[in-house]
Amino acid sequence: MSTFNVELKKIVDDSYEIETGFGLTDKLISDIKNGLVGNITKFAVVTDSIVKDLYAADILDKLKEAGYHADLFVFEAGETSKTRATKELIEDAMLEKGYRRDCCIIAVGGGVVTDLAGFTAGTFGRGVPFINYATTVLAAADAAVGGKTAVDTPLATNLIGLFNQPEKVYLDIAAWKTLPARQVSSGLAETIKHACMASKDLFDYLDEHMDEILNIDKAACEHISNENCRIKYEVVMKDERESGLREILNLGHTVGRAIETVSDYRLLHGEAVSIGLAAQARLSHKLGYMTETQRDDVIRLLKKAGLPADIPDYIDREELVKKLYTDKKVRNGQLRFVIQKGIGGVVEFESGVFALKIDESTAREIIYEM
Amino acid sequence: MSTFNVELKKIVDDSYEIETGFGLTDKLISDIKNGLVGNITKFAVVTDSIVKDLYAADILDKLKEAGYHADLFVFEAGETSKTRATKELIEDAMLEKGYRRDCCIIAVGGGVVTDLAGFTAGTFGRGVPFINYATTVLAAADAAVGGKTAVDTPLATNLIGLFNQPEKVYLDIAAWKTLPARQVSSGLAETIKHACMASKDLFDYLDEHMDEILNIDKAACEHISNENCRIKYEVVMKDERESGLREILNLGHTVGRAIETVSDYRLLHGEAVSIGLAAQARLSHKLGYMTETQRDDVIRLLKKAGLPADIPDYIDREELVKKLYTDKKVRNGQLRFVIQKGIGGVVEFESGVFALKIDESTAREIIYEM
Repeated sequence: MSTFNVELKKIVDDSYEIETGFGLTDKLISDIKNGLVGNITKFAVVTDSIVKDLYAADILDKLKEAGYHADLFVFEAGETSKTRATKELIEDAMLEKGYRRDCCIIAVGGGVVTDLAGFTAGTFGRGVPFINYATTVLAAADAAVGGKTAVDTPLATNLIGLFNQPEKVYLDIAAWKTLPARQVSSGLAETIKHACMASKDLFDYLDEHMDEILNIDKAACEHISNENCRIKYEVVMKDERESGLREILNLGHTVGRAIETVSDYRLLHGEAVSIGLAAQARLSHKLGYMTETQRDDVIRLLKKAGLPADIPDYIDREELVKKLYTDKKVRNGQLRFVIQKGIGGVVEFESGVFALKIDESTAREIIYEM
Repeated sequence: MSTFNVELKKIVDDSYEIETGFGLTDKLISDIKNGLVGNITKFAVVTDSIVKDLYAADILDKLKEAGYHADLFVFEAGETSKTRATKELIEDAMLEKGYRRDCCIIAVGGGVVTDLAGFTAGTFGRGVPFINYATTVLAAADAAVGGKTAVDTPLATNLIGLFNQPEKVYLDIAAWKTLPARQVSSGLAETIKHACMASKDLFDYLDEHMDEILNIDKAACEHISNENCRIKYEVVMKDERESGLREILNLGHTVGRAIETVSDYRLLHGEAVSIGLAAQARLSHKLGYMTETQRDDVIRLLKKAGLPADIPDYIDREELVKKLYTDKKVRNGQLRFVIQKGIGGVVEFESGVFALKIDESTAREIIYEM
């Protein structure tokens, strides 16, 4: 027997910039001209059937005008497109059009587009650079920081994917104006989550400026967008591989994910998370980590954002309780919740442990109350 | 407009050990017991329909005996299984059996298995650890170092994949005894390539000990296995992202890859590379980088290993010339070859440039000579 040591210790710099603004397509083109992705001249613009005409076609035209080789790759809008099959279709279309390792992918759209395109970029030619041009409130709060890309499979959401960092992220607030009001509200659920878990100041800001935000006021939206990035970054930076601290981003997601599935996607992701946030606030109050006023403040803010804070009548409560066990935080068959502490914090049960074991009976009690 | 900087500079240590020996299944189990992959207790053993009964089932039994949770995931042997569809089948089977992020994949087999399983591990739960237990001569030379994993698509070989480093690699020389002689010879083509491009000593060793190697003599095989790792590591370590130097591993692959496709896979990969090595040796001699003796020595060594050094009669020469243009080294429609310099070196045309532009007429001339 003999052994050979392959030494592969190195410094990796995946740093990138997030730019928030009103209409950033020209800035994107000028950044590319100024070397954002080196001397790459081929761009695959990946988008969905809704965003295509709103933004992606415009970006494509501007790339071509600037002398770049570019093509659009469009898939049907919606969460049900976030699959390995769609990834395969994009790959085959790119190969068909002669794209190889010397290209860059530009994802233009919401979370489904950025998740799917970021994953595709990570495995195309064993990794090509990608840029996120995010057009939704949810993508601004959720997809801009963290590097999580993935697709769903029949048996699991977001379980096949990669940690893959973009070259740059653009958060175009002007694009939020094209969103239906229900989508704007849904997108705000993750922002409210960030406030609940990490910033009383952001919570108060949301409370005071909710009308401006819902009307896509530039200053207010830029402010919450930056706060979202800052809060998520602080959590993610400290725990890139999602071992401990990053679990706090799961606040509200235990009931949220479960009810999203049980509703058969009648509830949007943010609406489901909103109900989940209300559920954990009730749980937190019951366990003594929040006052009654704090609990009610959370529920009131969710409603102010146009979000539901109660479980709809059509949801089978027992099915929901059962579904909680598919949560990724479950260990050895035991439910675990992240729990808010007051406004702007979470409970750290032991050093580095942020998910508390909760009895099924306690979870059921909350669910039947709502 | 406002910007937020996501700082993600960090030290990454992907170092791992390659262990070469005769029968390493017990060592694998004891390494796992001793914490090779931390406290993981769930193992997905991925293998093909041939290696299953030879090695994988044994490893599965030993894992279970040692108290671990383990399952076999078997796909049909052969290059045609190296697809996204097979990856998807493995993923779904793993999810179905309850595998999530807390598992490790053990790849047991040749290059197809290690490529496919390594890629699957890289995207399962956004990355789980994997171990390579390589059972072929080719995998020992090719897959042990470099971290390249991939699948083929109808339009491109090895273009969808990842750079993903294993936790450890086992090169089991005892397993080579189960290979047909043609597979052993084919596997040696990459070893001869390593000698041609980087080591006159290895070239001479192969020349002197070819009979022992073909009879799977333990000492001789361990020696060439270690030399393979060392040479490939030195190239790969200096150029992990395949920008310049790593191109020298393409020696013999311009004609090799093309003829493999044109033969419709009647030629094994190593046989095709062997013909490609002979082709570039002829080219090198013609261009003045090798003497006639050196050229003939290369061809003689290939034949001694039981490999072809001429283009079979059934190959359409013009189709082969045309196929050269699908090589990944082609730039702006111009053929580019890596060229051997004497025995044990390659030509560096400019600093960091190891692929030389070759006129189609020159390439055609060589091909018609062979």
